[in-house]
Amino acid sequence: MWDVSADNSAQGGNGPSIAETGEFGLIRQITGHGATTASGEPVVVPEVLQGPGDDCAVLQFSGPVVSTTDALVEGVHFRRDWSSATEVGRKAAAVNLADVEAMGARPIALLVAFAAPSDLPLKWATDCSDGLRTEASEAGAVVVGGDVTRSAEVMISVTALGELAGPPVLRSGAQPGQVIAIRGLLGWAAAGLVVLSRGFRSPRAVVEAQKVPRVPYGAGVQAAAAGAGAMIDVSDGLLADLGHIARASQVVCNVDSEALPVPESLQAVSSATGISPQRLLLTGGEDHSLVATFDPGRVPAEWQVIGTVGERTSEPGVRVDGAVWEGAQGYQHFRQ
Amino acid sequence: MWDVSADNSAQGGNGPSIAETGEFGLIRQITGHGATTASGEPVVVPEVLQGPGDDCAVLQFSGPVVSTTDALVEGVHFRRDWSSATEVGRKAAAVNLADVEAMGARPIALLVAFAAPSDLPLKWATDCSDGLRTEASEAGAVVVGGDVTRSAEVMISVTALGELAGPPVLRSGAQPGQVIAIRGLLGWAAAGLVVLSRGFRSPRAVVEAQKVPRVPYGAGVQAAAAGAGAMIDVSDGLLADLGHIARASQVVCNVDSEALPVPESLQAVSSATGISPQRLLLTGGEDHSLVATFDPGRVPAEWQVIGTVGERTSEPGVRVDGAVWEGAQGYQHFRQ
Repeated sequence: MWDVSADNSAQGGNGPSIAETGEFGLIRQITGHGATTASGEPVVVPEVLQGPGDDCAVLQFSGPVVSTTDALVEGVHFRRDWSSATEVGRKAAAVNLADVEAMGARPIALLVAFAAPSDLPLKWATDCSDGLRTEASEAGAVVVGGDVTRSAEVMISVTALGELAGPPVLRSGAQPGQVIAIRGLLGWAAAGLVVLSRGFRSPRAVVEAQKVPRVPYGAGVQAAAAGAGAMIDVSDGLLADLGHIARASQVVCNVDSEALPVPESLQAVSSATGISPQRLLLTGGEDHSLVATFDPGRVPAEWQVIGTVGERTSEPGVRVDGAVWEGAQGYQHFRQ
Repeated sequence: MWDVSADNSAQGGNGPSIAETGEFGLIRQITGHGATTASGEPVVVPEVLQGPGDDCAVLQFSGPVVSTTDALVEGVHFRRDWSSATEVGRKAAAVNLADVEAMGARPIALLVAFAAPSDLPLKWATDCSDGLRTEASEAGAVVVGGDVTRSAEVMISVTALGELAGPPVLRSGAQPGQVIAIRGLLGWAAAGLVVLSRGFRSPRAVVEAQKVPRVPYGAGVQAAAAGAGAMIDVSDGLLADLGHIARASQVVCNVDSEALPVPESLQAVSSATGISPQRLLLTGGEDHSLVATFDPGRVPAEWQVIGTVGERTSEPGVRVDGAVWEGAQGYQHFRQ
């Protein structure tokens, strides 16, 4: 109904633009293969009774359902000159799927709202869609719905749904005497951003971790089964996210910095830039690892103990080697 | 992690900007009252076990779940000089809640991703959030999760979840011999847009229908209980949306134009602009009424019969008084 001055003038050498495909064509491109991976292999998710194509998707859950939403905006969360469309799609899925994992749930389905300028090459949109489906299928989930609209910037808003087999693992469940353990990378995505910001493309491992977080799929259910007290995914930085657990649980979380060995790639970035490896490890966000608290002796395989939960307190917080960390604990949009 | 040059310079006389509130403060503003209406009355939705504040919301459904997502973008779906923030929030909720209704489901919960320039007045964001909650509560639902990010334009991406008491009412279920019936307004939102586009603010009823669609909450469940064959909400225009039913069901949908009386407000817009009332009624979108097919004699109260479902055919489509409608059937983004 609005002024529909679709701008076809910017058509370059990248094949048709999304303006030429139309809204419904693009929605089909994004959601039409909901039941397959990008490579065409079928993904069967029995909870999905009806995929895209009607007013809503229809799902049938046997346990409680978790749901979360996170949007990626061009220039804020990704740059098209740094990341491929596939990588952007994967990241948009991953940041949401990590939240599902962090509740101790199994990812089931994604819904995607895709907004873009009319002159965006169709291939960018479909590659992004392939990335979304690829990442979803790595987590055992499928894309069940979508919306497409015009906007000045590319924006991908994803909602993830997951299913619990038991009670959710909340931020508020950390118990004094438990240990804190991590599964996944720390500081890699932040190191990758430092590298990219300075115009470099290596070390490749950290650059790739920045472009597509390596979420430890399955670790959320694993932690829940091991009776994890509290859990969160590391999106803003270890100290910032442990701070959420500390405040919700009214405890002090003690991190032992010696339990965080410095990987070679972070050491390389540190040597080249002067940023301390500890700062990357403790405050770097966007890795979407999982950090959880466990009773001692119940830490699952592949989780690495990095600290302990102290007594209940009215002054909750995070300590590194017994002291308050000096400096920013993480990153917020809209603020320095 | 990204270049976080929050722009505080544009601070005007509208109170603090969202940049000064910070991401977490704004998320709390948007989602923190998830269990109340904008006026503070509690909304108890027993399916919501855990609202905002953790990595995910937690819900418990007894029947199948429907889910849908739709985004509103400034300049495409609303203008801040035409609509108040509250109206934009209400519309963002309504367009999604209408999709839940159109499956025959009961709305339960909304998740909201809110993107805005850093200098947006905080009051605009919180008023928008109040609008989202007000509209949700009219449908019996609550806001259970949110995300806030920076962007050049205001964009509100909403996911709605609903619950079915029986099988979903799909687009594909129209049966030859059924009647077509509508509940809600037709053409009002389009007439409102025509009026606003020409710089007028009246007739007020159509302007208000454009700014906040009047979704007939509860009518979806009512139609499902009456055994509706197919159902859809009128977002793109009656003919366009009936076309979806016709193609999915492989039938011809016959609309009787005499069964669509012209309301006074549409007649007024028609007289002032020369746009025929039939065009507004048949092709105007954004009213988010419900149109469904029923066995004759099973049309629920308050639904108005406007046509019939013809025989199965390999050439499905919509006919008005027996003929193909000449002209556009509806509206698509990205295209004229």
